[in-house]
Amino acid sequence: MSTSSHSYPMSSGDDQHSYNNNSSYQKAGIDGIGEKTRQCILKHFDLLNLNSNLSTLRIADFGCATGPNTFHIVENIIDSVKSTHVKENNVVPLEFQVFFNDQPNNDFSTLFRTQSPSSEREYFSAGVPGSFYDRVLPRNSIHIGHTSYTTHWLSKVPEHVCDKKSLAWNKNYIQCNNLLEEVTRAYQVQFKKDMKVFVEARAEEIVPGGLMIVLGQCLLDGVPLFKTWQGIVVDMIGDCLMDMAKEGLTSEEKIELFSFPVYFPQFTELEKEIEQHKSFTIEMMEIVRHPLEDTPLSNKVVISMFRAILYTIIKEHFGEDVVNEVFDRFAKKLAQNPIDFNECEKNVNYFMLLKRK
Amino acid sequence: MSTSSHSYPMSSGDDQHSYNNNSSYQKAGIDGIGEKTRQCILKHFDLLNLNSNLSTLRIADFGCATGPNTFHIVENIIDSVKSTHVKENNVVPLEFQVFFNDQPNNDFSTLFRTQSPSSEREYFSAGVPGSFYDRVLPRNSIHIGHTSYTTHWLSKVPEHVCDKKSLAWNKNYIQCNNLLEEVTRAYQVQFKKDMKVFVEARAEEIVPGGLMIVLGQCLLDGVPLFKTWQGIVVDMIGDCLMDMAKEGLTSEEKIELFSFPVYFPQFTELEKEIEQHKSFTIEMMEIVRHPLEDTPLSNKVVISMFRAILYTIIKEHFGEDVVNEVFDRFAKKLAQNPIDFNECEKNVNYFMLLKRK
Repeated sequence: MSTSSHSYPMSSGDDQHSYNNNSSYQKAGIDGIGEKTRQCILKHFDLLNLNSNLSTLRIADFGCATGPNTFHIVENIIDSVKSTHVKENNVVPLEFQVFFNDQPNNDFSTLFRTQSPSSEREYFSAGVPGSFYDRVLPRNSIHIGHTSYTTHWLSKVPEHVCDKKSLAWNKNYIQCNNLLEEVTRAYQVQFKKDMKVFVEARAEEIVPGGLMIVLGQCLLDGVPLFKTWQGIVVDMIGDCLMDMAKEGLTSEEKIELFSFPVYFPQFTELEKEIEQHKSFTIEMMEIVRHPLEDTPLSNKVVISMFRAILYTIIKEHFGEDVVNEVFDRFAKKLAQNPIDFNECEKNVNYFMLLKRK
Repeated sequence: MSTSSHSYPMSSGDDQHSYNNNSSYQKAGIDGIGEKTRQCILKHFDLLNLNSNLSTLRIADFGCATGPNTFHIVENIIDSVKSTHVKENNVVPLEFQVFFNDQPNNDFSTLFRTQSPSSEREYFSAGVPGSFYDRVLPRNSIHIGHTSYTTHWLSKVPEHVCDKKSLAWNKNYIQCNNLLEEVTRAYQVQFKKDMKVFVEARAEEIVPGGLMIVLGQCLLDGVPLFKTWQGIVVDMIGDCLMDMAKEGLTSEEKIELFSFPVYFPQFTELEKEIEQHKSFTIEMMEIVRHPLEDTPLSNKVVISMFRAILYTIIKEHFGEDVVNEVFDRFAKKLAQNPIDFNECEKNVNYFMLLKRK
């Protein structure tokens, strides 16, 4: 696997395997913080202080994928702004413009095709192609930014983890599961770099007084990924690949040179990282309950969810035949070794509200 | 054919039949007005007068299709603004944001995939899905708008031309070729409605002092479409459909209920229409020479160009088999009856510069 910057969008289209139809877990998480987001906007967003002549309020969703979650998010933000500030302060009727950002190879066609028609929307829609680990919007152009379940995707696979000569070579795993200290350290370095770029880019794009709302997944302090059910699932997918290599359906070397560009920081580690950047104040940062966290997921849901997320990246490295086979095998392995959700640790959800100084 | 509003984007993708690879005639026209556009911006666009605190200059291309023409256009506009106003007046470095607008079913994926990477671009890119016969952008948000070869596409097929009981029924033709007065009148009514909506929407979106640059095709006063080579080409495609109906490959009734939502106004008719709308001044309106207008086009170019433009709309009404067959037949008919470009009248190109009052 190349360690250069690359993007692996969520599965495109809107068929049975698409992210569009397999993001209900993410949706539940997003719905779960709907009211919190609303309260944050009421408390921390002061429209009149921003600009008394404001006629367009600009919102951006960074890493929007193909919908429909992104639509719920921005509609909630717009409702929150409208129902309070606009009415109470009787300012000029605001227009809303929403920037849906994701990688250039994200399936924007499905995004545009599946959003409500303009006559039923309260906002003007724009798609913004580009990695959010870079500037994607003009300076001081966004009033409220949002991102959910995105920043665990690094901009690239960390250096060394696919280097056979490195101590950080992630030989036997396809993810940073925290079993190997050197590997974890390599991922941490990349995570810090990326987080710095992310925060600095958003600091330029968001107006002073503007908000950045972040929903994501992290680990509780002291919990390694390999003990969480999400970590177990991905290690299990890695085992399926290994089984296939033994049967000659792919090669061990291919697996040894493959590692997901995904890193889940521990809560305090994330907090420290954000605190370093002086352009935002952290108005709120807390662990939030995922509405489904006590509901054991069916194998079917687990398979569909991880297939929608990981299909593109596995396909690009191993080819189309392997990716289909690996998810078939994963389904069988999961049926034979069901996950005991009560016994596992969890990736937890965090909610963070940043305010641009 | 339904007369309700509908969109027929240029052929998607970037294969041999795509608009992306078959829009060189349009490109030549656009290149031909590059210097004129530049001069217009120098003379009529006063950045400092717009807003002394301006930090982002916003440009929109309405009806951008899939590229690459739209990229050349916006780069020329940006260069013009940069090389003059910015340098001379020494203002804060401007950032540019470009809104690429087209119908939601336009192939934005190809647009985003084929544009230069952000590191090589001088602007932030955004795709805006929606018909330009409606608002697609916030009030007062655009400094320079542009559209080329778009407004001859009406928002829908005019009422009555597909109504068997109407005097305006366009029974034997698939376009408004100006042979039937009642049909022409029906198209004129729709054209006026659409032009009104187009100008009014742009008037809201463009800031006072902002520019709207329009490149399009029209007819010289007194010249009917059926005498131009473009009109002859489309009538010939209609004849091919009729031949196919006689052989049972499609039905005559289908043809009788089909008419392109395209209208080419005469120059003075267009001018009058624009003058009525008081929100813009017409700074310039003139016939411009198309660089290829004295070069007889090869049959191959004619076929590819019209295939890229008309493929989607013919396919939607007649089906995929018919559209492929009809272009095969058109190629043969054209080989047997080559167009005498010297004998034909021409659709001419016009250039129009509007300034928002």
